[in-house]
Amino acid sequence: MRKGFCIWLTGLSASGKTTLARLLESALVSRGLMVQVLDGDEIRANLNQELGFSKADREINLNRIAYITKLLVRHGVVVIVAAITPYESIRQQVRARVGDYVEVFLNCPLEVCLSRDPKGLYRKALAGEIKNFTGIDDPFEIPRSAEIEIRPYCDSPDKCLEDILHSLERLQRILPLGMKILSN
Amino acid sequence: MRKGFCIWLTGLSASGKTTLARLLESALVSRGLMVQVLDGDEIRANLNQELGFSKADREINLNRIAYITKLLVRHGVVVIVAAITPYESIRQQVRARVGDYVEVFLNCPLEVCLSRDPKGLYRKALAGEIKNFTGIDDPFEIPRSAEIEIRPYCDSPDKCLEDILHSLERLQRILPLGMKILSN
Repeated sequence: MRKGFCIWLTGLSASGKTTLARLLESALVSRGLMVQVLDGDEIRANLNQELGFSKADREINLNRIAYITKLLVRHGVVVIVAAITPYESIRQQVRARVGDYVEVFLNCPLEVCLSRDPKGLYRKALAGEIKNFTGIDDPFEIPRSAEIEIRPYCDSPDKCLEDILHSLERLQRILPLGMKILSN
Repeated sequence: MRKGFCIWLTGLSASGKTTLARLLESALVSRGLMVQVLDGDEIRANLNQELGFSKADREINLNRIAYITKLLVRHGVVVIVAAITPYESIRQQVRARVGDYVEVFLNCPLEVCLSRDPKGLYRKALAGEIKNFTGIDDPFEIPRSAEIEIRPYCDSPDKCLEDILHSLERLQRILPLGMKILSN
């Protein structure tokens, strides 16, 4: 069995986590890996309906995602988590809990995310209709230990994907393309 | 990749679900399968700390277990769930949600479970210290659609295990021993 691991995408809302998660999923599946995307919003809808966006509730939500991630990683799955994960202390918790963990920081300025605002969430947060919204009335702490950092405001999604894949190869989490046959 | 599926053990507290889950796990791992036990109590401790034992809370708890089960089954894991699951309507829900689902009913009379009471829970429930305890002040509805039924009060754990393995072979969920090489 191949060794599972987790790719944890952290970044502001609208920084491109879900888009990149799906691109990564395709790329890794085409390399023959078992891949599961865990999207923060989807997990909230299925598992954590009762949780809000206070720091305590975020902590519970993210630790549950980490718990499920670990179960999947144990069975050789590459788990891609797409969740804001705004607090450094909680990132350290999920890192410790998951074990095989690669953090990817989507470093995208708030102004860019605000101008994108695909779901209209920033607009609602600015109007006071959503509370504890990261970047508006809740902090996003800059990741201090991310293995990979990308800049989705300068680079296209495809370029970001390529950078992540190269970094994963460098970190020896995946094999360079073309080495697949040699390694079997 | 082998096809994953779920073995859902339903029965009263102290009917032997956890013991049998561990025996099944060993037997299936030794047949080369990827196996994950999801124990109801463990999931409550890790994922569902806020939930109690009302019917509504049990429903949420079991649907979350079903959600995680489905994620694992998708990647070829055989998931063994050990959870009382006392209501037929909820068993139907998790069956539909998981899809590849085999229900095993541990048919053990309440009197036997009461006399075992390894964790002292029945004693507490009878003393009124635990509310909504299945078999005492909460019902256990007899499963109507279980694929497999065992009687852990007449048969030893090893005999129960053997019966389940034979039934899983008959249901074509696992290969009969000795057919492993032929099927590869």
